Amino acid sequence: MAGEFDLIAKLRERLGIPVGEPGHGRIALGSGDDAAVTVPGGATATSVDLLIEGVHFRRETAPLRSVGHKALAAALSDLAAMGAAPGEAYVQLGVPENLDEAGCLELADGIASVASEHGVAVIGGDLSRAPALALAITVVGHAGSAGDLVRRSGARPGDMVCVTGELGGAAAGLALIERAGLDARIDAAQGETLRRRQLEPQPRLEAGQALASSGATAMIDLSDGLGADAGHLAEASAVGVEIELARIPVQAGVAEVAAALDTDAIELAASGGEDYELLVTLPADALGPARGAVEAAGVALTELGRAVAGEGVSLREGDGSVRRSSGFDQLAQRER
Amino acid sequence: MAGEFDLIAKLRERLGIPVGEPGHGRIALGSGDDAAVTVPGGATATSVDLLIEGVHFRRETAPLRSVGHKALAAALSDLAAMGAAPGEAYVQLGVPENLDEAGCLELADGIASVASEHGVAVIGGDLSRAPALALAITVVGHAGSAGDLVRRSGARPGDMVCVTGELGGAAAGLALIERAGLDARIDAAQGETLRRRQLEPQPRLEAGQALASSGATAMIDLSDGLGADAGHLAEASAVGVEIELARIPVQAGVAEVAAALDTDAIELAASGGEDYELLVTLPADALGPARGAVEAAGVALTELGRAVAGEGVSLREGDGSVRRSSGFDQLAQRER
Repeated sequence: MAGEFDLIAKLRERLGIPVGEPGHGRIALGSGDDAAVTVPGGATATSVDLLIEGVHFRRETAPLRSVGHKALAAALSDLAAMGAAPGEAYVQLGVPENLDEAGCLELADGIASVASEHGVAVIGGDLSRAPALALAITVVGHAGSAGDLVRRSGARPGDMVCVTGELGGAAAGLALIERAGLDARIDAAQGETLRRRQLEPQPRLEAGQALASSGATAMIDLSDGLGADAGHLAEASAVGVEIELARIPVQAGVAEVAAALDTDAIELAASGGEDYELLVTLPADALGPARGAVEAAGVALTELGRAVAGEGVSLREGDGSVRRSSGFDQLAQRER
Repeated sequence: MAGEFDLIAKLRERLGIPVGEPGHGRIALGSGDDAAVTVPGGATATSVDLLIEGVHFRRETAPLRSVGHKALAAALSDLAAMGAAPGEAYVQLGVPENLDEAGCLELADGIASVASEHGVAVIGGDLSRAPALALAITVVGHAGSAGDLVRRSGARPGDMVCVTGELGGAAAGLALIERAGLDARIDAAQGETLRRRQLEPQPRLEAGQALASSGATAMIDLSDGLGADAGHLAEASAVGVEIELARIPVQAGVAEVAAALDTDAIELAASGGEDYELLVTLPADALGPARGAVEAAGVALTELGRAVAGEGVSLREGDGSVRRSSGFDQLAQRER
């Protein structure tokens, strides 16, 4: 596109470490050559995330700065779920005709704010015209050795199943954003907090590293929702997961939004996606120290249930009856 | 999209190393967890490439298998230009409504064939619906240390400027593909070779590594075209580059296509993009051994001219006059 090289220079100024200016110890060569060069040391965890306008976000309801924020935050959440220390990011941007330079830079500012908050260096990228806004993000995290990183597959029967933070906020925020009129029924400040939870999620990077070094046996981030992601963890670990619905930590305001939607708060918290909290399994004796380490990172850790011999996920009511078990077929139809 | 998980499983089968099956020594965890895990050893070179239907390719003229082939080959060409050994790749795929599962798998087969040829492991990816076919590729290459990798910025006045292989074939192939009727004026077998040069380029990975270990001072791959990419190298190295037009190695059949287009072969070879050959600078005394090492990799190395004090690129006629110098403004308007 005309002016591509100008825009690349401006994006690099906001986002990138220019070539020849290694800003972090690990980076030998930043953006602007044929490839970026790093000297990783131990093990690396690498994850890629593709976000497409009209599929993952709509510009009518998500400010461009938030789109950039969420794209990098969601990618980093995968590193959090490995217990990796965040390192480098690469940003590929497909720009439609109706997005001008100012819009591209607003998007870049959202990416840059998350990168800066978590000490991530954006050291490469690519730019193209595209029929709709597309962001492809690659993130690389680090650990001393491959064994320090936590997979989905290590849960054992008897492990405690825990979750960081609070759930349901992103789904409630999405409802507030998408459904006109719902706002009037919710406290204004609470509504704003819920919308931000949807638009600008926080990857639990410190908590993830704390859990990894506290003996976590398996970990996954909650992008699809508690029920679905617990299912992924259960399948990878070849265990069953039992969750007590009453223990789910529900974010303030979610109950009010759920009521307005004619559902209940627990349902929204258990099936809503994009909270980007961490679901983790731990041996029982690791729970106390793990909670301390996660709380030191400013996040709560809540015990939800147990890993058991068997398969699938059971969501149990207070009386022990099963509200729903495994499958969650409707979620398999969702985009992500 | 419906059936997303099915398609992911099938793509992983064709492309990826499944989780828990480390196929290469460096890979600790393949596709299917929150992130892939590698243990790089020395230095890594990482490059990302975004290809969008209607911008970089058209499905009317490029078979899906070729689209996949070219996407990975073009990304790997950036690693070749660093002199890195290819390692891992990550593939993000945006799939439009009018591309069915069989089409996605054909695309994947093109990616897989290039990966297999060069020993690249595809160990991660993402999949989304999209308004047009989009491929975002991340490639990671390796070297013993950061100093072993060749940047664009190391050329010094007096260095020889050389190029691998032959030029103009990709531009001639594109003309044959895009302009009906041109075919009839070209030898059939030669025309097919030129079209393949455009559709299924070969990254010069072995030649790049040979040049890196033969004392290359600067290197870049020819994606934008000789004139434009020589300009990038000259700018990064703060030198001038003088190229003798008569020395440019022109691929067989390019002259015939150029004549049919009312231009000359040298013009097509100097300004056409996507040959994915390597432009390299070397101290004069390294030229002999470098040529031997590159030829051992099955590729020719041709001396084009010199790096000089100054700036910009001069393309010189046989009589010493300058046909064109630096700028190449029309190229700055091109997409890539």
